[in-house]
Order: sequence, then C-alpha cells, then structure tokens
Amino acid sequence: MKLGVCYYPEHWPEAQWDQDFATMVQLGIEWVRIGEFAWALYEPKLGQFEFGWLERALDLAHQHGLSVVLGTPTACPPKWLIDQHPEILAWDETLTPRHFGSRRHYDFASEVYAEHCVRIVTAMVKAVGEHPAVKTWQTDNEFGCHDTIISYSPVAVAAFRNWCQAQYGDIATLNRQWGNVFWSMAYDSFEQIDSPAHTVTEANPAHHFDYWRFHTDAVKAFNKRQVDILRAHSPGRDILHNYMGRFTQFDHFKVGEDLDIATWDSYPIGFLEQSPESEDYKATYARTGDPDFIALHHDLYRAVGKGRWWVIEQQPGPVNWAPHNPAPLPGMVRLWTWQAFAHSAEVVSYFRFRQAPFAQEQFHSGLLRVDSEPAQAYFEIEDFNQDRAKISGDIAHQPAKVALVFDYAGDALLRIQSQGHPDSPLQVVLNWYRAARKLGWNVDIVPPGGDLNGYALVLVPQLTHLSAQTMAAFEQTEATLMFGARCGSKVETVSIPQNLAPGELQRLIPIKIASVESLRRNISAPWQGDYNATAIAWREKVETTLTPRAICADGWGGWYQSGRVHYIANDLSAEDWQQVFATVASEIGLAVQPLSGGVRRRAFGDYWLYTNHGPDQATLPESGELVVGERVLGVAEVAIVKVG
Amino acid sequence: MKLGVCYYPEHWPEAQWDQDFATMVQLGIEWVRIGEFAWALYEPKLGQFEFGWLERALDLAHQHGLSVVLGTPTACPPKWLIDQHPEILAWDETLTPRHFGSRRHYDFASEVYAEHCVRIVTAMVKAVGEHPAVKTWQTDNEFGCHDTIISYSPVAVAAFRNWCQAQYGDIATLNRQWGNVFWSMAYDSFEQIDSPAHTVTEANPAHHFDYWRFHTDAVKAFNKRQVDILRAHSPGRDILHNYMGRFTQFDHFKVGEDLDIATWDSYPIGFLEQSPESEDYKATYARTGDPDFIALHHDLYRAVGKGRWWVIEQQPGPVNWAPHNPAPLPGMVRLWTWQAFAHSAEVVSYFRFRQAPFAQEQFHSGLLRVDSEPAQAYFEIEDFNQDRAKISGDIAHQPAKVALVFDYAGDALLRIQSQGHPDSPLQVVLNWYRAARKLGWNVDIVPPGGDLNGYALVLVPQLTHLSAQTMAAFEQTEATLMFGARCGSKVETVSIPQNLAPGELQRLIPIKIASVESLRRNISAPWQGDYNATAIAWREKVETTLTPRAICADGWGGWYQSGRVHYIANDLSAEDWQQVFATVASEIGLAVQPLSGGVRRRAFGDYWLYTNHGPDQATLPESGELVVGERVLGVAEVAIVKVG
Amino acid sequence: MKLGVCYYPEHWPEAQWDQDFATMVQLGIEWVRIGEFAWALYEPKLGQFEFGWLERALDLAHQHGLSVVLGTPTACPPKWLIDQHPEILAWDETLTPRHFGSRRHYDFASEVYAEHCVRIVTAMVKAVGEHPAVKTWQTDNEFGCHDTIISYSPVAVAAFRNWCQAQYGDIATLNRQWGNVFWSMAYDSFEQIDSPAHTVTEANPAHHFDYWRFHTDAVKAFNKRQVDILRAHSPGRDILHNYMGRFTQFDHFKVGEDLDIATWDSYPIGFLEQSPESEDYKATYARTGDPDFIALHHDLYRAVGKGRWWVIEQQPGPVNWAPHNPAPLPGMVRLWTWQAFAHSAEVVSYFRFRQAPFAQEQFHSGLLRVDSEPAQAYFEIEDFNQDRAKISGDIAHQPAKVALVFDYAGDALLRIQSQGHPDSPLQVVLNWYRAARKLGWNVDIVPPGGDLNGYALVLVPQLTHLSAQTMAAFEQTEATLMFGARCGSKVETVSIPQNLAPGELQRLIPIKIASVESLRRNISAPWQGDYNATAIAWREKVETTLTPRAICADGWGGWYQSGRVHYIANDLSAEDWQQVFATVASEIGLAVQPLSGGVRRRAFGDYWLYTNHGPDQATLPESGELVVGERVLGVAEVAIVKVG
Repeated sequence: MKLGVCYYPEHWPEAQWDQDFATMVQLGIEWVRIGEFAWALYEPKLGQFEFGWLERALDLAHQHGLSVVLGTPTACPPKWLIDQHPEILAWDETLTPRHFGSRRHYDFASEVYAEHCVRIVTAMVKAVGEHPAVKTWQTDNEFGCHDTIISYSPVAVAAFRNWCQAQYGDIATLNRQWGNVFWSMAYDSFEQIDSPAHTVTEANPAHHFDYWRFHTDAVKAFNKRQVDILRAHSPGRDILHNYMGRFTQFDHFKVGEDLDIATWDSYPIGFLEQSPESEDYKATYARTGDPDFIALHHDLYRAVGKGRWWVIEQQPGPVNWAPHNPAPLPGMVRLWTWQAFAHSAEVVSYFRFRQAPFAQEQFHSGLLRVDSEPAQAYFEIEDFNQDRAKISGDIAHQPAKVALVFDYAGDALLRIQSQGHPDSPLQVVLNWYRAARKLGWNVDIVPPGGDLNGYALVLVPQLTHLSAQTMAAFEQTEATLMFGARCGSKVETVSIPQNLAPGELQRLIPIKIASVESLRRNISAPWQGDYNATAIAWREKVETTLTPRAICADGWGGWYQSGRVHYIANDLSAEDWQQVFATVASEIGLAVQPLSGGVRRRAFGDYWLYTNHGPDQATLPESGELVVGERVLGVAEVAIVKVG
Repeated sequence: MKLGVCYYPEHWPEAQWDQDFATMVQLGIEWVRIGEFAWALYEPKLGQFEFGWLERALDLAHQHGLSVVLGTPTACPPKWLIDQHPEILAWDETLTPRHFGSRRHYDFASEVYAEHCVRIVTAMVKAVGEHPAVKTWQTDNEFGCHDTIISYSPVAVAAFRNWCQAQYGDIATLNRQWGNVFWSMAYDSFEQIDSPAHTVTEANPAHHFDYWRFHTDAVKAFNKRQVDILRAHSPGRDILHNYMGRFTQFDHFKVGEDLDIATWDSYPIGFLEQSPESEDYKATYARTGDPDFIALHHDLYRAVGKGRWWVIEQQPGPVNWAPHNPAPLPGMVRLWTWQAFAHSAEVVSYFRFRQAPFAQEQFHSGLLRVDSEPAQAYFEIEDFNQDRAKISGDIAHQPAKVALVFDYAGDALLRIQSQGHPDSPLQVVLNWYRAARKLGWNVDIVPPGGDLNGYALVLVPQLTHLSAQTMAAFEQTEATLMFGARCGSKVETVSIPQNLAPGELQRLIPIKIASVESLRRNISAPWQGDYNATAIAWREKVETTLTPRAICADGWGGWYQSGRVHYIANDLSAEDWQQVFATVASEIGLAVQPLSGGVRRRAFGDYWLYTNHGPDQATLPESGELVVGERVLGVAEVAIVKVG
Repeated sequence: MKLGVCYYPEHWPEAQWDQDFATMVQLGIEWVRIGEFAWALYEPKLGQFEFGWLERALDLAHQHGLSVVLGTPTACPPKWLIDQHPEILAWDETLTPRHFGSRRHYDFASEVYAEHCVRIVTAMVKAVGEHPAVKTWQTDNEFGCHDTIISYSPVAVAAFRNWCQAQYGDIATLNRQWGNVFWSMAYDSFEQIDSPAHTVTEANPAHHFDYWRFHTDAVKAFNKRQVDILRAHSPGRDILHNYMGRFTQFDHFKVGEDLDIATWDSYPIGFLEQSPESEDYKATYARTGDPDFIALHHDLYRAVGKGRWWVIEQQPGPVNWAPHNPAPLPGMVRLWTWQAFAHSAEVVSYFRFRQAPFAQEQFHSGLLRVDSEPAQAYFEIEDFNQDRAKISGDIAHQPAKVALVFDYAGDALLRIQSQGHPDSPLQVVLNWYRAARKLGWNVDIVPPGGDLNGYALVLVPQLTHLSAQTMAAFEQTEATLMFGARCGSKVETVSIPQNLAPGELQRLIPIKIASVESLRRNISAPWQGDYNATAIAWREKVETTLTPRAICADGWGGWYQSGRVHYIANDLSAEDWQQVFATVASEIGLAVQPLSGGVRRRAFGDYWLYTNHGPDQATLPESGELVVGERVLGVAEVAIVKVG
C-alpha cells in the first residue's frame, strides 16, 4: 500500500522542487511520476537534447528517497516535428487531419512517427535509464484518450491494407470472410481497400471490426517498440502504461502482455458525469462516483496487469473536463484510496501534486492549491496514513469465488453491430458486475480463454466469439457457468454461426437462438413464473429440449439450465441479475451478503473493507474486529473489519 | 393476389438453388426478385461480362415455374469503376465525396456514370432480356435510400447550371423569380450559380427548391435511360422500381410516368421506430407498425403506379437498420399481407428468402433462418394461403369516395421553408389521412391536377402551388373540397402571391390570409363554439366576408365554408380532423364507420378487410358474411367480411 | 421619441416609392434606413458604379421630409467579387470556406476585402455623402450575425500571428503567458501558431481567448476604416451600427468607441424562442418576449452608445428565423415601442416597411403586408402616436441608482472556460438583472472601469479580470458593491491569480477562494440560516476571517460582507437574487417596488412607464397621475404615470 503523486517539475521554478519533494515525503508519498509530456523540453530542436533539468529533478527526488515513474513523452510530439512531418497527424472520421495544440495528435500507424519515438525514447533512456531514482517507466500517456485510437489517415489506410494482406493472404479469402458478395463490395486487390469512413450507409461490420483489430495491433506494436528500448537500456525496471476508464477502443489484454504492471486513471466523479446513467443516478452519486464502475475497473486492470496493478492517477478533488465538475464529498479521497488497495492496488498515486494556474487543466485540483497551501485531498491522505497504521495483518489479494469473463473484441463488435441495443456493451457488463458486487462478492475479471479453475461461479455476459481455447477453459472448469445473450453469436470475422447462436456453446447446453430482437427503453417483457424479473433491451427466441427455468409470456427469452451451465436469453436490470445470481448461489452453496444502496465490501488478506458511496448510512454485519471506522457506516465513510 | 420473394442466388452455393426454388413454390410463391446488387459479379472487370451464373439461376427458376423480376445493378457500382472514375461519387452537404463500401454511392447527375449504366444494362438485357423467366424488370434499387438524391458535387453543380439555363433562359429572369435583389444575391451568369450548400445562413428557398426540382429531373432521366434500353431489348415485360416509405426527396409521380408498376418496400416496424411519433405511440405500435402510415403508402404508390402497384419488399420479422429492432407480433406478416392486397396490391413479395449470415444485413430476418429452417414469416404465409383459399368473389380495387391530393413539390417546399412548423409536411398529411381512415373510409391519393370526378369529398392538406390544371380539376369536380392551411400560398418559384394566400383559391372561396404563425408544441388555441377542436402548430389570420364555422378566441384561425368549398386555417390533431370530417360527411350524406384504437378497415371487391394493429381487441360491426377471422378481432388479427 | 422604419427601395418598382414615403410620413415616421444590402446594385461590375437609383430615392425621401440612415453595403459582397477573390470568404470551425448565397460571407481579417470595402464606401459617400436626406450612416449590418466573427481561414490565421507578435513581442513571452510548457505546446516562432480549431481535445483557453480578442480588434479596425471615410466625406452626420441581441462575440464597447450612436435589432419573440429558458417559460412569454432580456439590451446598448442609442430594427409581427414563429399579442408593438423610449431610445425604427414576397425573409412581417394593406403593427404605431401626444413633461434619461458592470471579455472567457457551468455567462447576468428589475429599479450598465460615482448599489456578477482602472473605479465610489462568483478569478491572459481568486478584490474584502465546483441542474445546496436561498450551478469554498452572512450546510458557498463590499460565492436563481438585493437595499436605504409576474416599470424624465409582458393583469401602485392606460394593467398593456 504505497502512495504516489504525479508531478511536473517543468511547471514550477526549479527553486521550488526541493520543498515540493519534501512535502511529498512528509505526506507519506513514496512514488512520483514525472516527465510524460515534456518532449518540447527534452528536445527543443531536432536532435538537440536537453536532459539536464530532468537529471537534476531525478537527483533531487532520489535525495528525498522518492522512487520515480518516468514517462516517455510520446503523447505530445512538439510543433517542430509536426511542421516537418504533418503526415504523422491522425485523421478523424470526417477525414480531416487533427491539429496541433493539445495532445495525442499522432497516428499509431505512422512509421515516421514511430521512428521519432524510437529516437526520443532512446535518447531519454540513455540519459537517465540507469538513474537510481528511476524505478519504473511509463510508456506514453493514456493510449486512446480523446478518441485517438482509430485514425482515417492515408498512412493508416496504407498500413491497414498491409494488415489485411497479412491476415487473409489473398483477396478472395477476405472477400469471402467479410461477405463482400453483398452489395458488390468485392475487392480485386488489397490496394483497393479503404477505411470504413464516410460510406453512404453503414460499412460492412467486418470491415469496421478488422479496422478495430488492426488498430489494436498498431497500439500494441507502438507500445512494444518503446518497451524493447526501455528493457534494453534501463534493465530491472518495471514498465507500465496508464489506461483509462470506460474505454475499450483497443484490446488492453494484448497491450498488457508486453508490460509488467497495468495502471489506470481513476476519476470517479468525472466518469459518472460522462456516463449514460440516468439523471437521478448521476445526482445521487455526483459527489462519490459509481462504486461498481470504479471497482470493475480495478478488477479489470488487475487482470490486464496479470495480477499487478496501480491507480496511477487518482482524482483528488474537482476536475476540469467533465460536463459538470462537482467536488467530492469530504472523505472520498480517503475512501477511493482504500477501495483501490482493497482491490490489491500496489500503489495509489494522485493526479496531481499542485494545481496548475495555467493552460487547459487549471481547474484540475491537486494535493496543493495554486498558492501551495494544502487542498482537501492533502488532509484525507493524512487520514489514510493514520488508518494504514492500524493494519498489521495480511493484505494480499484474495482470489474471488466469482469470475467474470470480459472480452475487448466482443465489446468492439457489439458496438459496431449494436442491432439497436439501447445500452453499450460495457454498460451490460457493468449491470452483471454490479449485481455480483451487491451480493457482497469479490469478483475477478478473466480474459476469454483464461484459467477458470477454482471459481465457483463464472459470469459470461456477452462473449460473442468462442475460440478453441475459450471453449477449453469452459469445459475444464467445474464452476457453474452463466452465459448471457449474444454469447457465441459470431464466427470467423463477424458472421452468424451456420448452426445459429450460441454456436459452439451448443456443446455445453442444448439451445439454439431462432431469432433476436432489441427493445426501446419503454418496452419490456416480464418473466412468468417463479422469478420476479423483466426482460429488457435484448431478447432471444430459443429452441431447446430443456424446460426453461423462466420464460416470457410470449414464449421468448428466459433462463435455461443444463447441469452447471446456464444461459439467460435476454438482458436484465442489475436488480434482476442480483436475484438470479442469488438463486444460483443458493443452489451451489455460494454465500452471499446482500448490501444496500451504495454500500459495498471487498475482502483482502485478513480484512473486509466496507465503503459507502451512497446517500444513506448503513449498519455493518456483526462479524470480525473493527479496525478502522464505525459499525454505523456513514456516507463517504470506510470501515475495515479484520476477519482473518 | 400473388406472393413473391427477394432472393440472392449469388449469396448461396449453386447447389442449393434448386432446393430454394422448390421451397418457394411449396410456399405458394410465384414471383422471385433477383439480381439487383450483383454488378461486381456481372462484370468483374471492365468489359468482361459473366452472366452465366445468372442464366443458370433463371433457367432453374423457370423450371420451377417461377416468374422473375430482374433488377438492374446500378445501385452498386463496383470498386474498379469508382477507382477509374471517382468523379461519379455523389458529394454530401459537407461537400465531401461519399465513399465506396456500402451502396448508392453514385451521382444522378454524372454523365460518365450514366454511360456506364447504359453499358451494364445493355449487356444484361442482351444476355437475358428474352429469357422466359424474366417477366418484369426493376430499375436500380430504392432511389434515394440513405439520403442519396441530392448531391453537392461539382458534377451536380455543373448540371444544375445547365438546368437553370434551360428553365429560365436568361439570368435576369432567374434573378427576378428567385428574388435575388435580396442581399445582393444576383448572378451575372449561370456559371456563377453554386449549390445551396454551406452558405452562412439559409440559402434562398428558391435556390433550394430549384435544386430539389433539378434532382427530380435528374432521377427521372436516369431511370428513363434504363427504361428505354429495357423496352428495346426485353419487349413485353413490365418495368417497375421499388420506392421507399416516408420518402419524398423526388417527385415519384414524374418518375412513375415512365414505369408500368409502382412498388414499395414496406417495413412497418422499422419505419415507426424512425418516425417522429411520440415515445408512447412508438411503444404501443412497436410490434405492429402504424396502420395508417402503411396504408397511406399503399394508396400513394397505387397513385404513382397509375393503379398498378406491389409491395416488393415486405418486412418478414425483425430488421437490422432501425434505432431499435423488435420482432413483429405473431400474425403481423399475415396481416400486412392482407392489408396490402386489400389496398389492391398485385403482388406482395417478402424481403428476403433466407437470412444472410454475413455483411451489413445479417440481422435482417428472412422466410428461412440462417440454418435454412423456416422462420416465423414462413408459417404466417402458410396461414395466408389458407385464408386466400376462402376468397372466391371479386377482389378488384374499389374506388374510394374520398380523395386526398398529395404533391411532392409542395412537400419539398414546406420542408425547405418550414417557417418553424413543428411537424414535417408528410406528418401533417398523415394526420388528415389517419382521420379519414378512422372514419372507415377508403382513400384514394390523387396527384395535383388529377381527375377528381366521382369523389364525394376531396381532402387537400397543404397544396402550396396551384397550376391551371390543378385549379381546373377543383373547378370541374362536384366533390366537396376541404383545403388546409398553406394551400395556394406560393406562386412562381416560391413567392407569396401578390393577392396573398390562398392565391388562386380565392376564386373558389372568398378568404385572404393576412398573417401566419407557427406554434411550439406547448402552445395551442382552442376553437370557440360548436366544435371541440384545438388549433395547433400553424395558424392563419383570415380576412373574409364569410361567417366562419369556427374561430379561435383571438380571432385567428378557424373553419370557413363557401358552398362546397371549405378552408381550415390551422392545423389540427388527427382526432380533431376526424371530428371535422365527420361533421362534413354528415352534411353531404357520406357514410362513416368510426373505428377505435388500431382497428382499420378497407373495402376491396366484394369484401371488407378488418385489421387490428392496436393493443386491444375489438368487435366488428354486424354486417356481411365472415369469411376469414372472428367477429371479435384480436390483436394482430384480420377478419374478412363479404358484403358484395 | 422619433419613429423610423427600414425600407428597401430596390425591392419595389420605382413608381411605388412616392406612395411608400407618403405612407411613412402619414404614420408619423421621421427616419428611414435604406441601402445596406445593395452592393450588387451600386456596383454591378467591378468599378462600374450606379448610384442614380439611390440618389432618386434619397431625393424623394427628402421631398417627404424624411431623414435617412444610409447603410454601407459591406455585409453582402457580390458574387463577382467572391469569384475574383475567394480568399475573402471566412472559414468556419470545420475549416471550410463559407459559401456565397446568403450574407456575411466575408472575413474581417481580409485586407483584400477591407480594400474593396474602402472602395465601395468611398464611392458611395462621394456620391451621396452630402445629400441633405442623409443624416446618419450605418456601417455594415449586424456584425457577427450567423456566427460570423470568428474565422479560421488562412488569412485570419496569418493576421492572428501578427496580432500575437504585436501583443507579446517575443514568442517566449507568449509561451509563458499561455502556459505552453503544458503538454509541450511551446512554439519556436509566431509563424507556428495556428487557429485553435480542430485540436484533438480542447485547445489552450489562452489560445482561444486571444483568438477572441484578436477578432474583436479585427472588427473594430474593420468598422473604423469605414468610419474614417464617412467622417471625411460626409461631415456632420452621426454614424451608428446595428448590434444584435444575446450576442457577445466581440467587445461592443471597443467598437462603440468609434461610433456616435449604438443601435440594436430587437426581436423579443424570436430571441426568446432561441433562448435557453425552460419550455414553460417560453410558452408563457411566447407572444410578448422576456421583459428583462429586452430591457437588459436597451440598457447595455445605452452604455455601448455612451448614452445615445436606438432600436433600429423593432419586431413588428411574426418573424421568419426562430425555431417557431408565433405572432405577438395585439398591443405588443406599441408596448415594445414605449419600453424602448422609456429606456431613453432616441429612435425606434421598425423592420420592415413592407413584407417582401420573395427570398429568405418572405415570412418576416412588415408594417404593410405583401398586398400593401396595413398589418397589425401599423395600427399599433397609430396607437402609440396617440399616447405620445399625451406626454408633455420631461422624458430625459433618468440616471439609475443601481449599476451593473458588464464585461465582454469576461463573458468570452467564461464561455471558453465554462468549467461545466450549466448556464451561459450572459444568462447569469440576466438573472442578476432580472432580480433588480423585479424590485422596480432602473439599472445602468457600466463597462469595467467605468465611473461608478453616484450609484447607491453596484452589481458585479462575474467580472473575471480586474484592471487597475477597474479597481480604481471600485475604490473611488461610495456605492455598495456586490460581487458574484468568479470575480477576480483571472490574471494575465487566463491564469488563476497566484493569491487565488478573487485576486485583487482581496484588497476590498478579505476572502480567498480555496476551491470551486460546477453543479448539474438536479443538484443544489440550500443556504442555512436567515435567507431562504439555494446555491445552484456554481459554488466556491471560501477562506476568510469574516463571519459569513449565509453559508451552505457543508461550509461551502455563501454570502460575505466587509463594510460596503459584498461577495456571494455561488450562483442563485433570479428569485433568490431578488431576496438578497432587497435585503441589502433595505440596509442602505434604497427604495424598492416589488413587481409581480411580467410587470415591470421604468422611470424616465417625469414619468414611470409600467408594462405587462406576463399572462396576468396587475394593479399599479397608487401614486402619480395616470397619463396613458389604466390602473389595472392588462396583459400586453402599458400605463404611464406622471410623478415629476
């Protein structure tokens, strides 16, 4: 449970650095992230490198005993580079080059840009890669922020053509797999392929999906190129990247393969404002954030990091970028910190040390105010430090009994081909996750094909594609498997299985999806019989020899079970999922602890952490030794109970 | 009452065709439409034609006794043609060329493209034009789908300049008719005219309106060029085009002049989802469609087809392209089929035979599922066949006593110059039509200037322009005429008549529109006096010597009558129109049969068809012999009563 | 109290002019504005001038005793000029040149265009500048209408680079003041600077703000160039410009410095339809307009005109350009006329004389209809003339006791950097103003740094920047000062003060803003204690040695007072501001007269004008002699009471 902070020495007079590092140490901070936006300072002119100021900052950090995460500056190519090579700019879907003047204005597919990144990263790592303060590297910053994964530039299209050739070998294969016989879309050669932008009506979903997959590969390659240089010249350091929330524009598992640690930038209040939740929900959690949205990402990035993960940017107060920017309730910075550690974060690092009085983020809070006085977060970190001193037992990650399988490619496919589903695929996953969390469960996220042994219950909300490895994982586990609608609904690139959905899953449960429909929000279909639940958003008509456990009045939808395998052929609200999961849990002997409102809990090591993001206080279950907090859990409060 | 289906032999292995045709025949299908998207297969390289596969498909269809509607493939120019001639791409209103990768990416004004269309259509008709299976041709596919009538390309602009010159002769005349003295918009020559895109504020409505008229002429010429070739080389065949719903981007009457049959693509559920109806209305009819929207188009396309019309694409289940895609209630495919025939369709043809597992429309239902098993529609067609066997009497079109005059140009003008009217002009027409249909009336749609003799009542919702021929038709009929607001409000291109609206109509009824206003949805003005109705959306202040039948409290609006001529100077809801029409009907001795909820009826030959698109069952009037269905008309049910 | 009208002789046959001028005179009209859109007639070909028709129109006007405001035609460069110099077109923020075909299609930064404007204005003023009818000039028309201030053209960018160089001298200074160390945004030279368009995420607010300031300077220079020519060649004439409503895209005070009179175009109903007010509010005032919106602009433009101002375009009936276009209630044209004169307008001039039957504005009412018969406004002007005859006393402007400081630059800054504030800055100002007006006060608008002596109460809603002159004005007055949130929150270009907000204001009141937040509309925070008010939209956390007069329950926000200086650290509704202002008024002995609903009053000379824009009648206070109207003030009615 280490604390960190993001710091920009280049924003402040050098004379101030010493005091700033001292303040960090005084606050119990051990990690400081620096340097990730400073290319224009590292290399003010092509080939003219100036790392002296960075070395002095690193020296001083080292003197204060701080460990540094050093960022490569490739999110911000300087103006001179853009002027020399305007072709490195990404193009948006209106087919316009994006302009210099903010950040992330580069194209992942640009070989020219990649070579300049190699140059700057090599120069940087040669300058300071062996510096004793540098313990960890960060590649770039927030891949994809501001919708910057997909580019429609000529450079990107040329690279996509090569990718298609590598993927399919000959154009006839691509035509067949994409189904280009439809609407005379066949190509004669790979050179004829364009981006899927600006077509008259929707482009082929296979075209879109491959364009997405190509970009995932481009991001992975872009990252890997930096990783290789850093590993070569700065041995023994971990390498991480800072991912984002509610962001699935590339396959993070693939990029994560090349890194040591996954980190993410957790802004609970900003993310809620940007979310598709209802106005009432947003008002209720406006100052605390959605507890499950936060926790889902903690669990997801633990999976992406193969067990090792940080919060590298933790919201410390109001931010500047959401539709509205309310202040967190007092106590929330402490609560979020505990929440992350209970989910096994190695480090929680705040963004940023001191609020900047200038430029785009001047309304983004820090631990210090513009006048260098402590801001609200400062005092809450002190509170956290007092709490932390009370923890003496084991705090290791406690593997969950419940797993949830999440697939980035399926998420992309379902966005590309929503078929009128009123919710985003991530929102569907969040509903499943929320239901599990409200039953008091720890949840592990598992990538498709990941090991499922040891789990009692595996939730699979909407896994469209089923590889052999994925099917093997389902067949090898003894866990109860709960599949949701659209599982197994795709083969090859994006086609419907010849034997209909759920395709290969028919080996596990004898059902066949005869028809599907999506529903507007003001239509739904209550289940009949024992379960008080209502099909919403998406329904499937099922052919089966099974007697359904539940079904809609018109014969659609419902819940099917074959031994340890369940299939639920429609969407449900989080409340209804909770009821279904509780029923199954009771049948398989999996304990539940229903939690009300915004109260959640998380087991870690010998402890349970209880948190309250909701508007009402609640009373904790009577078990274990209360180490931090009170039995009556106030709003924005935490309680830690020792049960080990 | 023939059935048909749309089939794409190129989507399936040739070995499957025979079974597919056999299945069609078994289901009582007599017509099959094929070939309209297959240019890339007909001509994989410039000048290299391959019609062998098509001939084999036609031979096989013929062996099964199927009649074929063969489509020209010009909706989908292949990629090699686009690469050779990128100038054939249409440009959208952001002045960007539309891209290859879906369909309808061509410019109606491109002479280069027109010549390539001549080439492919000539090659095709020479190859198979005399084939005995080919009984009918379809030109292109859904002119205008995906907003593809109006193009802003340099090619279109150049053609528009020529059109203007032909229309006006000299630039001074154009300047005068457009009113270009306003804002110094005068041109010195036709070469200075541009498209009305991307002006700082609105362009001159006369400019927009002529741009619309030019494109109607371009579509007509494009279609005519194919028609001439087909008539020359495939004599004795009917030629049709498949129009769309809620689509008025060109004057269908003008294009229809050159064709033998009008057909349209009827997707009741998808169209309702796309409509401007309220959320509640959409929920109520989500699985049945709006009965009046469907019927309006049946009646409209009967007029466009000069009496001959088909549904050539009938929705058979959920589609893939609406905002949400619910499944029709069981029974609706049968109901829609009956509804079309009762409106005198010659053929109802389903789209499509088998659901495709690939490409853009893979979620579009067919009569067969992806696994070739029958889908819901299959069984409902079997039901229809049983119904049909019970019909032995006359089923000919029964001319209506009520006519509704619909003008495409006026619709365009009112969209261009809505003056803040909160409803689209087509929605206003639909309200009038709905009221007439809820009174149990058959309605004939008549183009402006069409023969109005024989009708008891003629409804004229918003006929902006009054030609001499149109006025003659009004003057020659003995029918009662009901004019709505904005009738006669335009002269020349788009100007206000010197004697004010309703212009020439003042010869029929002594009123003058002193002022007009449009109203936001939360303002309205109840009529005073005998009629319980409320002016909405649009009001007019009237000067007249007549005593109004109804008037708003502030002296605006109201209902005026002079002999057999009525003028209603505001918009009303469908319910209020129903009341007004019923009053007039009673006065002129026109029988009504008020219908509740979603129940409608339609007289054809010796029969009445009753249909129920609504959520509640209803009891039929006690008259005639029940041939199909029950006296208590269930939801999604039909009943056929013989009265002849 | 003179009346005027806008007239376009070029729209009508010359034979009609005499009758038209006679009709004006008959209606008591003394001023006529002509000529501002007629460039294509003045100069049909480059250098070929034709002012004969204009001279004949001026002669005729003069014969009728009419005074003319003559407009320069630079809002509408003709097509031949655009074709010769397409580079004079402005570019929108999609980086696309705007097209010919409406108006205002020029770039303020274009030197080429400026020179053509010099040419046409010089030719015009030499032709008719000494004409005895020409008493006043208008430059151009509605600077900025249709979002035409900011251009993103290469021409504009080049000029912006020069502006930056002039402003900052060297690039290092610009980099420092903008904070370009952030995100490696530093420039090496002024030539590298681009417009702030099309960046990946938001551009630097300093970049946006300077781009706004640059455009203000461009507008001022553009206007000044015409003014200099007019002054040189048409001596003794006033020069004015017609500004708009709800429009702050340039600093009108700066442009106003070079003009003699400020005028604005007052369309109360159209502006309300376009406003962000609630649907209910819009329905309530749909036929009368928002009384305070109108009055705010009257007071604002009196300030911009340094005391001299007109309504040069007064809405006379329904217009053509709002989302919906309802008719004013009978009486409103008279009411609006009185309202303007009571706010000290010198002239109220109606737009337009006769409704045009052609082109874009054919649905815009006039004093005459298309058929030359009088429209509603005509009769109301007759009513006004009868009222006017009853006024014999002093009608001079009566200086208010209450001032409101309005700053265009701050408005721009707050739009650029809203930080999630749910209201526009002008809407916040309107809430303050409305509260003052509902207390029965006259309000003077004062620019920042303007003289504040003589006022009892000065309202400063959101003055972000505090110059030395502004601070001096605050320090020199003895008025009670009420500052709102965000006052003093900016230094240099757009940075946060080193001593935090309210920056320099800390010299007047010992408070420091520790943190700020913006609130979604469904969150608010009631004040605790004596005042029944609720913080909305924006809150600030305050550090102070003062005991707050009011505070939110969580310690945020509230009302602070130090002697005659107040600071309210959150937004309030107009109703809550009214309560706060009334409390302060009572403490400083400033009389109030609370007014209900849509009733307002305004003192002028010896009189009070009472107006009723609301839906309910009201009874006037019992004081003074009723000169016009009744004690029971009906809807859309005026009453004038003599108190002097």
